[in-house]
Amino acid sequence: MTYCVGVLVEEGLVMVADTRTNAGLDDISTYRKLHHFTVPGERVMMLASAGNLSITQSVLSLLQEGVPGEGDEPTQKLVEAPTMFQAAQLIGRAIRRVRTIEKDGFEAANIRFSISLLFGGQIGTGEMRLYLIYSAGNFIECSMDAPFLQIGEHKYGKPILDRAVTYRTDLYDALKVSLVSMDSTMRSNLGVGLPIDIAVARRNALTLEVNHRIEAGEGYFHDLRERWSAALRAAHRAIPRPPYGPSEK
Amino acid sequence: MTYCVGVLVEEGLVMVADTRTNAGLDDISTYRKLHHFTVPGERVMMLASAGNLSITQSVLSLLQEGVPGEGDEPTQKLVEAPTMFQAAQLIGRAIRRVRTIEKDGFEAANIRFSISLLFGGQIGTGEMRLYLIYSAGNFIECSMDAPFLQIGEHKYGKPILDRAVTYRTDLYDALKVSLVSMDSTMRSNLGVGLPIDIAVARRNALTLEVNHRIEAGEGYFHDLRERWSAALRAAHRAIPRPPYGPSEK
Repeated sequence: MTYCVGVLVEEGLVMVADTRTNAGLDDISTYRKLHHFTVPGERVMMLASAGNLSITQSVLSLLQEGVPGEGDEPTQKLVEAPTMFQAAQLIGRAIRRVRTIEKDGFEAANIRFSISLLFGGQIGTGEMRLYLIYSAGNFIECSMDAPFLQIGEHKYGKPILDRAVTYRTDLYDALKVSLVSMDSTMRSNLGVGLPIDIAVARRNALTLEVNHRIEAGEGYFHDLRERWSAALRAAHRAIPRPPYGPSEK
Repeated sequence: MTYCVGVLVEEGLVMVADTRTNAGLDDISTYRKLHHFTVPGERVMMLASAGNLSITQSVLSLLQEGVPGEGDEPTQKLVEAPTMFQAAQLIGRAIRRVRTIEKDGFEAANIRFSISLLFGGQIGTGEMRLYLIYSAGNFIECSMDAPFLQIGEHKYGKPILDRAVTYRTDLYDALKVSLVSMDSTMRSNLGVGLPIDIAVARRNALTLEVNHRIEAGEGYFHDLRERWSAALRAAHRAIPRPPYGPSEK
């Protein structure tokens, strides 16, 4: 399993992704799922992946080496895309390309063609964007009303995002809430685990402000988990006892 | 969608279920999903359902009118089962019976035969039990290590249960945490909604101590939702800012 979340607030973009990959519960490895394509001063782009590892790796390789054009389009690399929208289209094209190549083999082996991607960033003077790209190569864009997108095992970590993140949320508060969301997911699903990759890009900076891997045992994240657990325990203790049942209770 | 949770602690059993049923987002109704079969002083049994409404209603009717035996077994009603284990087996038999009747029609209409049930309670001097019964009629039992079971849209509300419920949790604290879990689910999934049915049975009391429907606007639940939201906001605000990024941040 996988859990990745991207948050696009007024000040910039945060992305957080776990690194656990499994082919069955007894075959678990660590793979980077959060990648970046950065040309400082020109563009900053982050890409987080969920789904079949072979597909995501092939898509990434195509984006680095160049995605062959459909029809009379030229081959293009992700770092050459002129806008974030066209970059998202290029990623969709790369997914369709891999599907064309792998389709028969996947069908023969009865494997589902599954990939989903979070793609966010900024190119030049264009707007900062965050997209969720599906297996079919189509994509949706994050809105100011719900300024986050998730892929993978997303349900456990959604309640805190629904409550705590708005477009006006401070950039590093957005990172903090994303880490709480990741913690909730890790706690309830063993398929999502440390280390965690995080990246932060401030709007119009056109570079990564944070590009860090949180390893097991790292003090801040350990402290965040402890504090969050303690706060949740205190929070439900502070709620009055339900008024139902025998009156002496 | 549906969300139901059952918690079996040292002092007794709690069950909480929403009532929203939908056939598409534009056809939403309220149906009771939490049922009880109680003979005070002899037995107390609660049954919560998720899945196809026609199947759950047929299973319930069979359990009330009598489930025809398989082979040379006699027809039996749920209130006649001598132990909780045999009662769970009888529910499994009722599911298989409905499947036998509906199978061809479901296949012709390409509808999946989907039902899951939480079944808990106590009969006479037997142990209090909580089971999760699947579409195939097989079932698992709740353990002291993880003293809760969920059906339906279960992921949003699992993190708080994972953190806050143990076998030693007070009976009404278990109810309170179940309501918080329901609140998290309702907040993140529109398919789960008020009113909410709740039931509580104290161990060895052989009767329902609480059997109540929480309607929209009910003060306690409204207050619980407000307090929980405020506590979560305060909790993530109290966590220090992440130490990553520019030092002046």
